[in-house]
Amino acid sequence: MKGEALYGGKAKTVYATSDPKRYIVKFRDDITAFDAVKKANLKGKGYYNAQISAKLFKVLADNGISTHFIKMVSEDEMLVHACDMIKIEVIPRNIAAGSITKKYPFKEGEKFENPIIVMDYKNDAAHDPMLNDDIAITLGLVTEKELRKIRKIALRVNEVLQEYFDERGLVLPDFKLEFGKIDKKIVVADEISCDTMRLWKKGTGQSLDKDVFRFDKGDLLAAYEEAARLIVPEIFK
Amino acid sequence: MKGEALYGGKAKTVYATSDPKRYIVKFRDDITAFDAVKKANLKGKGYYNAQISAKLFKVLADNGISTHFIKMVSEDEMLVHACDMIKIEVIPRNIAAGSITKKYPFKEGEKFENPIIVMDYKNDAAHDPMLNDDIAITLGLVTEKELRKIRKIALRVNEVLQEYFDERGLVLPDFKLEFGKIDKKIVVADEISCDTMRLWKKGTGQSLDKDVFRFDKGDLLAAYEEAARLIVPEIFK
Ligand SMILES: Nc1ncnc2c1ncn2[C@@H]1O[C@H](COP(=O)(O)OP(=O)(O)O)[C@@H](O)[C@H]1O
Ligand SMILES: Nc1ncnc2c1ncn2[C@@H]1O[C@H](COP(=O)(O)OP(=O)(O)O)[C@@H](O)[C@H]1O
Ligand SMILES: [Mg+2]
Ligand SMILES: [Mg+2]
Repeated sequence: MKGEALYGGKAKTVYATSDPKRYIVKFRDDITAFDAVKKANLKGKGYYNAQISAKLFKVLADNGISTHFIKMVSEDEMLVHACDMIKIEVIPRNIAAGSITKKYPFKEGEKFENPIIVMDYKNDAAHDPMLNDDIAITLGLVTEKELRKIRKIALRVNEVLQEYFDERGLVLPDFKLEFGKIDKKIVVADEISCDTMRLWKKGTGQSLDKDVFRFDKGDLLAAYEEAARLIVPEIFK
Repeated sequence: MKGEALYGGKAKTVYATSDPKRYIVKFRDDITAFDAVKKANLKGKGYYNAQISAKLFKVLADNGISTHFIKMVSEDEMLVHACDMIKIEVIPRNIAAGSITKKYPFKEGEKFENPIIVMDYKNDAAHDPMLNDDIAITLGLVTEKELRKIRKIALRVNEVLQEYFDERGLVLPDFKLEFGKIDKKIVVADEISCDTMRLWKKGTGQSLDKDVFRFDKGDLLAAYEEAARLIVPEIFK
């Protein structure tokens, strides 16, 4: 069923299928950080990210949010609706962490009164510069109406995920979403995984996410496995 | 009438007056660029900037836009309403030039279909990072309502200035505004001068602005004088 590789990204590969409206996304074990300056390959990472993503897409669907996810076709591959991707990284932030504390006078760990949404232009050559609405529209990335829609979905996804994690002893400081279009309809695409979220253990604040790799905080696989045990326990039975 | 110096900025000094609701702003001959790494003192610069600013504030007032400007009290000093300044640099852009072409794939000289408004956090220590609405509000710089108002005024100022310059053989690729509050009312404050605008001669595209200093394009004083002759010819009579 898996056809030719259409696109090899930094952590996943997108494959054609016999149906031009469906792709298979394979979650690889590659990991990169800091504009791809830091790189590694960690066996099993792709599996945990694929399983966590699949579960979270199902949770979103259960809450009436449309995503590209159809089903898993192997342990680390998902069948998805082929999308016309919107080249924007949409980052809801609930707690100040990472880059935002370097750029602005926010204190690491500070809880925002309302979620902040940051949008970056997904463009490796330009180093993913931050956007504002006028710039995103003028670059032709999105229309004003699409921006409103994306913002609304992102805030709703943020609510749903925060609740899901809270019940499982996890805190969600921030995460990255990508949106795609199926015909005119905007859906959540790409992945929602330990590579694309900050996930802290409640109480200790221990990172169960890519920060373990970014800042050499210990055993990444152990952290991702721990996240998976909390988010998608059924795969351990 | 001029009291103590309250604040010495990179190019102007703000003085108290006998009336706590009024300040005197002196336009100095100092000029800085690139985050104040490049510096100079160019005799006469303060005079031209003060005269150009005063004229443009009058043009705005004639068009129903409130500003801090009251009157000139010397060749390079203006009496203004004391404002509670909003720490945002509001930059309307009509044509791609300078930093925006480095950061995004816009071509130098490209005309935008609609003006782009960029807002930067006026914070030297943080190197004036770009804002979006959520961040500006969360930093406590401005309310959502104030942002809407600022955006509306900035677009109107942009229209009025573009028309004024167009009639005088000048093009306005971009410029920076600062807003202040008098009680609750938002007004255009600070300056609108060759230091804070990009101004090109129609046809040739010759810079009559701080780019002459930034990029060593020739005689800055001659450029500012030429701008002044077009914008405020009455001071040459
Ligand atoms: N449903 C989809 N249809 C088409 N492309 C998708 C879909 N979901 C994700 N993508 C794209 O596939 C790529 C996934 O691979 P990844 O390794 O994350 O790449 P990148 O290094 O560009 O982030 C991304 O560019 C992402 O935008
Ligand atoms: N009406 C006003 N009331 C109070 N402060 C003002 C007013 N107009 C301008 N300012 C402030 O005065 C300072 C002007 O000096 P400048 O040399 O431009 O300073 P900076 O280096 O901070 O830009 C700026 O910080 C500006 O925000
Ligand atoms: Mg990716
Ligand atoms: Mg200034």
